[in-house]
Amino acid sequence: MKVVVPNKLAMKRLQETKVKRINSDQNTIIDLNDVHIGEGFFTVIAGPCALESEELAINTAKAVENAGAKIFRCSLFKPRTSPYTYQGYGIDGVKLLKLLHDETNLLLETEVLSTDHLDALAGEADILRIGSRNMDNYELLKAVGKTNKPIILKRNMSATLEEFLLAAEYILSVGNDKVILCERGIRTFENYTRNTLDILAVPALKELTHLPVIVDPSHSTGKSSLVPAASKAALAAGADGLMIEVHPDPLRSYSDGEQSIDLPTFNKLMKDLSEMANLLGKKSSTPVLS
Amino acid sequence: MKVVVPNKLAMKRLQETKVKRINSDQNTIIDLNDVHIGEGFFTVIAGPCALESEELAINTAKAVENAGAKIFRCSLFKPRTSPYTYQGYGIDGVKLLKLLHDETNLLLETEVLSTDHLDALAGEADILRIGSRNMDNYELLKAVGKTNKPIILKRNMSATLEEFLLAAEYILSVGNDKVILCERGIRTFENYTRNTLDILAVPALKELTHLPVIVDPSHSTGKSSLVPAASKAALAAGADGLMIEVHPDPLRSYSDGEQSIDLPTFNKLMKDLSEMANLLGKKSSTPVLS
Amino acid sequence: MKVVVPNKLAMKRLQETKVKRINSDQNTIIDLNDVHIGEGFFTVIAGPCALESEELAINTAKAVENAGAKIFRCSLFKPRTSPYTYQGYGIDGVKLLKLLHDETNLLLETEVLSTDHLDALAGEADILRIGSRNMDNYELLKAVGKTNKPIILKRNMSATLEEFLLAAEYILSVGNDKVILCERGIRTFENYTRNTLDILAVPALKELTHLPVIVDPSHSTGKSSLVPAASKAALAAGADGLMIEVHPDPLRSYSDGEQSIDLPTFNKLMKDLSEMANLLGKKSSTPVLS
Amino acid sequence: MKVVVPNKLAMKRLQETKVKRINSDQNTIIDLNDVHIGEGFFTVIAGPCALESEELAINTAKAVENAGAKIFRCSLFKPRTSPYTYQGYGIDGVKLLKLLHDETNLLLETEVLSTDHLDALAGEADILRIGSRNMDNYELLKAVGKTNKPIILKRNMSATLEEFLLAAEYILSVGNDKVILCERGIRTFENYTRNTLDILAVPALKELTHLPVIVDPSHSTGKSSLVPAASKAALAAGADGLMIEVHPDPLRSYSDGEQSIDLPTFNKLMKDLSEMANLLGKKSSTPVLS
Repeated sequence: MKVVVPNKLAMKRLQETKVKRINSDQNTIIDLNDVHIGEGFFTVIAGPCALESEELAINTAKAVENAGAKIFRCSLFKPRTSPYTYQGYGIDGVKLLKLLHDETNLLLETEVLSTDHLDALAGEADILRIGSRNMDNYELLKAVGKTNKPIILKRNMSATLEEFLLAAEYILSVGNDKVILCERGIRTFENYTRNTLDILAVPALKELTHLPVIVDPSHSTGKSSLVPAASKAALAAGADGLMIEVHPDPLRSYSDGEQSIDLPTFNKLMKDLSEMANLLGKKSSTPVLS
Repeated sequence: MKVVVPNKLAMKRLQETKVKRINSDQNTIIDLNDVHIGEGFFTVIAGPCALESEELAINTAKAVENAGAKIFRCSLFKPRTSPYTYQGYGIDGVKLLKLLHDETNLLLETEVLSTDHLDALAGEADILRIGSRNMDNYELLKAVGKTNKPIILKRNMSATLEEFLLAAEYILSVGNDKVILCERGIRTFENYTRNTLDILAVPALKELTHLPVIVDPSHSTGKSSLVPAASKAALAAGADGLMIEVHPDPLRSYSDGEQSIDLPTFNKLMKDLSEMANLLGKKSSTPVLS
Repeated sequence: MKVVVPNKLAMKRLQETKVKRINSDQNTIIDLNDVHIGEGFFTVIAGPCALESEELAINTAKAVENAGAKIFRCSLFKPRTSPYTYQGYGIDGVKLLKLLHDETNLLLETEVLSTDHLDALAGEADILRIGSRNMDNYELLKAVGKTNKPIILKRNMSATLEEFLLAAEYILSVGNDKVILCERGIRTFENYTRNTLDILAVPALKELTHLPVIVDPSHSTGKSSLVPAASKAALAAGADGLMIEVHPDPLRSYSDGEQSIDLPTFNKLMKDLSEMANLLGKKSSTPVLS
Repeated sequence: MKVVVPNKLAMKRLQETKVKRINSDQNTIIDLNDVHIGEGFFTVIAGPCALESEELAINTAKAVENAGAKIFRCSLFKPRTSPYTYQGYGIDGVKLLKLLHDETNLLLETEVLSTDHLDALAGEADILRIGSRNMDNYELLKAVGKTNKPIILKRNMSATLEEFLLAAEYILSVGNDKVILCERGIRTFENYTRNTLDILAVPALKELTHLPVIVDPSHSTGKSSLVPAASKAALAAGADGLMIEVHPDPLRSYSDGEQSIDLPTFNKLMKDLSEMANLLGKKSSTPVLS
């Protein structure tokens, strides 16, 4: 049967963009203090859903560093569906970032929700994150782009791949090409999982663009029991890395506890990923994986 | 295996909110210079997708005013998927709002994309709009809420009704209860229409909340030929109003031309809606409909 | 913005079909003992989800006939998700159809699940129904087509409009053009309603085909409180009729009780629909509506 | 307002079923002439979309056998969206199955579309397949169940995991527990791929049931370039096997040419899968993989 090809127009629009892949050796590899992100490498970002306290931050950071992660997930703000649930540590948490830089060798990435906090966050974090809710917030995309920091751009849960890439284009169009695309699950009728991990977005994005592609196995599953399988599937599908929620005591987490894995599970997973990355010929940014 | 049960938690969360409907005579009716928006009334907002020029603005405004509309759609900014397509008139367009206030008796509503322009827009517009892409932009929701202007909140194309109502709650939680909910189509597998108009969101939202509910028949269909049917269905389903894209020459529109109806179609539709509203016992804010 | 038009290929495939609309006066109107189904008419089919007993069948039939319905929904088999739930009356129920024909003037429509029962059912029923689960059961489509009875074809909950029309084409391709298309809700992420009523399928199908189009407001909503709004929206959107689940005591229904309306609600709804059909210039097959 | 809570009821319904997993060592392993299908093994089924000719059948069968496949995909009937496209070889093709049994050592699996052909197909094939369009065809499920052959049950493109398992229960309820579940992509808004491969269905189904779970990387992607990534992701996610469309000359295929991989690609993929299965501790039913 002839397959419907609905994205002819989409692909035509992508022709004119900077995100479009021209040929196979044109991959963007981001290098941050010898941590490489992009084709041929496999990089794990890990940390709790939200930085709830100094103690949680330091303890978790040291634990994931020991397990081989090189980048720490630092979320100071939690965009929450309800105004009456935990909203995160807030901008004061920048002091936690300073502390984490002092106490560990981890790179730090953090979510930017609003231009109001951009200077403070960009002053301390190594990588900025645009969450899925803000993928279409074009003013914010241009503002973070201008910091010239590497940007993790999470796919909106209802964005097509074309829309995802055109959102990235907002960042590249202001002169910043250090964009890391993050697939984190799309919204479908299936609700056994929190979202449906669109695993084929990984090889599809690798076909369409030169940018690094990572996967969030935590938000896409919503269930800690499925995180290891999602992580291995992402690596096997060609992802350049993962962003994993890890919490020393998931059931006491202020948010997203059901999808965070504990430290023993994380250690075991890192070992398994290291072996598989090795088999697949991926170099690794992390000691355990190299 | 703990299974996620989305609705139970949702309904529990809604229990504690200000948007929740307690009993049937608790409807919020917004009154702006004798234009009423809410249960028992039917109010039409109309105008071009974007204000492209002074001439277009004035001519279209006078035409829709003659046809019975009382509120004019004034979009100065167009959030566009691609950074390389028409982005709208920009903040200078506030002078167009002044002009429209001088030349017509229409109320003016306009989209707010960023807190940067909030003061300028709130200084002139009668109603502020949060577009579907920004439904989850909680910082912006709180900021527009504080202006104390009536706010049209458009449903994100992948938001459940619960998420839609909790986004409204961000506005109510800062003390502004003049929120108008706008159903504008959700994203599904069906692509004959641009989105799938979730017509049952109208009676469902009327069950769940006391807030006014309107429908955007233009973005939900993406096809001008379907706009009249969508408009009548919305009224029959219990909507309190419509936001319709009207353009004197749709094919020359800079954006969304395929979904804008022309003036003769709009005039005919207003007449049909007036008769149906009359049959349904709806009072109208507009001369033609009363 | 230029709208993506993904169904160009689809429309090309439809060019060659018998279901394709050529011009606006080519409507198929089915005439069964002076009950007309098609453009310009509005016909209500009503009855319980399943015929549970002779008493239920007769009582409900007489009540809906009094209220103005001309066709009775007779489901002898219930295709159920689980093999351990009520599966329906079974083929013995053909004697109920005989009884209903004796005791009322209603036309009878019934669902065909398998070719095994086709002769028995076609021998007594006036209209055959293909349920949404069997829309893709092409062998069954051809078999029912050959009976030359009018066929109600329900849209599969994940079928595009193109797929829906091509399924109808299986029936027309064996020489039977008495196909009634029934929109009954599609599967989306939204789960406040059982399905999402794709109301715009009604005018869209009327653009694309000459066949009658009706709506099932019961399965599409899954909630009796929303059935009246869904019914009126369907009529306003241009539907040629409705198939409504009615039960004298919905809470005691063996199946789908949550979505069945009771008799007083049905009577009130029929009155409201009659007035609206009148306003819209629709003739009616039913006394109350005429 | 009573809210539908789909999963709670679902899980309650699954409690009473035979498909429900009780504990971790209760896995169903199907053994067919020393080809094992189930937990701990990895089995590849391969073949063209449809058996177009004797020559195609024999040549492709020998080639995939050489590459290590042990089961051959034999589709004599193609359920097609349009009645005017190629509908398959037809029931005469049973002679092709005989020939394939004579000329190769492959096990043969074939799709059953209707009870009319069941005896003829079950007389020659080793495994019967229920396609996704027939997952809800409960009469057919019970009929194939009674043959006591192993049954590959493909997930309907809009079925939840619960509905998928309850469809399997129709087969187990007639006494046949040799059911192989096949994830083949679900229908979502994303249309870069033909369907969205729900990769997390694999570990989720392994949690919920004792049945073997395989993946169809061809229909889920619709693009041959993505098939290798989808196959590896499936293995990494815990799948017990794959069903892959292979064609010696995909561009000349009568159907599904865009998603079929050619023989060199298949050979390379089998080698890669073998190494990964080895690393993951999976035994294999196929020489190359062992």
